[in-house]
Amino acid sequence: MAELSDLKAVTFDVFGTVVDWRTSISREARAMGERHGVDVNGDAFADAWRALYQPAMSEVRDGRRPWTRLDDLHRLNLLQVLAQSPLDGVLSEAEIDELNRAWHRLDPWPDAVVGLTRLRRGYLVGTLSNGNIALIVNMARHAGLPWDVVLGAEPTRHYKPQPETYLGSADILGLAPEACMLVAAHNNDLVAAAACGLRTAFVPRPTEHGPQQRTDLEPEHDFDVVASDFIDLAKQLGC
Amino acid sequence: MAELSDLKAVTFDVFGTVVDWRTSISREARAMGERHGVDVNGDAFADAWRALYQPAMSEVRDGRRPWTRLDDLHRLNLLQVLAQSPLDGVLSEAEIDELNRAWHRLDPWPDAVVGLTRLRRGYLVGTLSNGNIALIVNMARHAGLPWDVVLGAEPTRHYKPQPETYLGSADILGLAPEACMLVAAHNNDLVAAAACGLRTAFVPRPTEHGPQQRTDLEPEHDFDVVASDFIDLAKQLGC
Repeated sequence: MAELSDLKAVTFDVFGTVVDWRTSISREARAMGERHGVDVNGDAFADAWRALYQPAMSEVRDGRRPWTRLDDLHRLNLLQVLAQSPLDGVLSEAEIDELNRAWHRLDPWPDAVVGLTRLRRGYLVGTLSNGNIALIVNMARHAGLPWDVVLGAEPTRHYKPQPETYLGSADILGLAPEACMLVAAHNNDLVAAAACGLRTAFVPRPTEHGPQQRTDLEPEHDFDVVASDFIDLAKQLGC
Repeated sequence: MAELSDLKAVTFDVFGTVVDWRTSISREARAMGERHGVDVNGDAFADAWRALYQPAMSEVRDGRRPWTRLDDLHRLNLLQVLAQSPLDGVLSEAEIDELNRAWHRLDPWPDAVVGLTRLRRGYLVGTLSNGNIALIVNMARHAGLPWDVVLGAEPTRHYKPQPETYLGSADILGLAPEACMLVAAHNNDLVAAAACGLRTAFVPRPTEHGPQQRTDLEPEHDFDVVASDFIDLAKQLGC
């Protein structure tokens, strides 16, 4: 661990790494269907909504769309998903808003709160997510996630994996990139962070995409740390 | 309290309202002098440094200086104060940086942590300060301040009392201005927030500027709440 002795801040990808978005979104979509007597396949609904996530951010990254918060991208995507679902035309505007805010109510993986609480003893602990500030803050209150700071897309106005997101987040903290670590369950996010000089930790979340998940089951590069969960990560980082 | 029934977020001015900057800065300046065998009048040093605070932010507000974080304004001001003090030419660059970060280590007023902890039960609790994110986050870890979110100058790139700071902070939360309250020990800050539609609470800090303080001893306008301290504020807001 000698090479990590200058580490000051441990930052986290959130969707999939800290919280189990698929189970939570699936449950809320199914419940919204039940309210209207409509049978919704929650898992398929969650997967369809999430499939529009990267394309929507790409429009912002490419400049085809001006800076737009993730809450607003999620809502645009939700309208598309609803139009292809049994809930087409069923929900009021207020119910669409309510369902859109399901992303503010995602449940954490079982080790997340304990691991983060331990890590906070030794490091500044923050989010480095594409989620907007309100989403991350409301989720933290819902899930009991003890963040010191919300970094990432909204404070830097760039969506990962653009380098500005990682470098701007370190700069906001007044830290060199190598004093910051990104923790993620996604190889591509960690590769982009490492290219900016951040330290990296891979934590697998093998059921993020459900029981048939085939991607990101293993670290595919030489990351600084590979940990089985956040409690193991805290232990490996001396907390 | 009926008119406050839609309140969701309680946000705070920080310097003077949450933390006792004068006592903390005075102590650190004096200690830095002692390290070098130089007698520093800590209170005068703190007052001189703080006197350059508004003029430096005015340069940014007026566009004479591009957006600059408070840490960097503080350091420019510190160089001026040092040049007029017995520490002129005495400190290394690293010591100047260390003294500049005294603003990250300010102590809270005695009621602050207890009051904020109670308020968090019922409201989202955040900062709406001119302090930059790293300053506020490091101070929170030093002082045990349980913020949900850091708003204010750096996320909006506008220094109070510009309306963009208040309106942009509410917008980041996805809330209407009237769903947000500013708590401050300063009449002018609250007047500016009220003009933007925020709710207002005055909490006097009669020794912020030392025992001879003559300003902000009383609320000078019709604010929504006047409380003796943060514990009284929590009680008045039903927490």
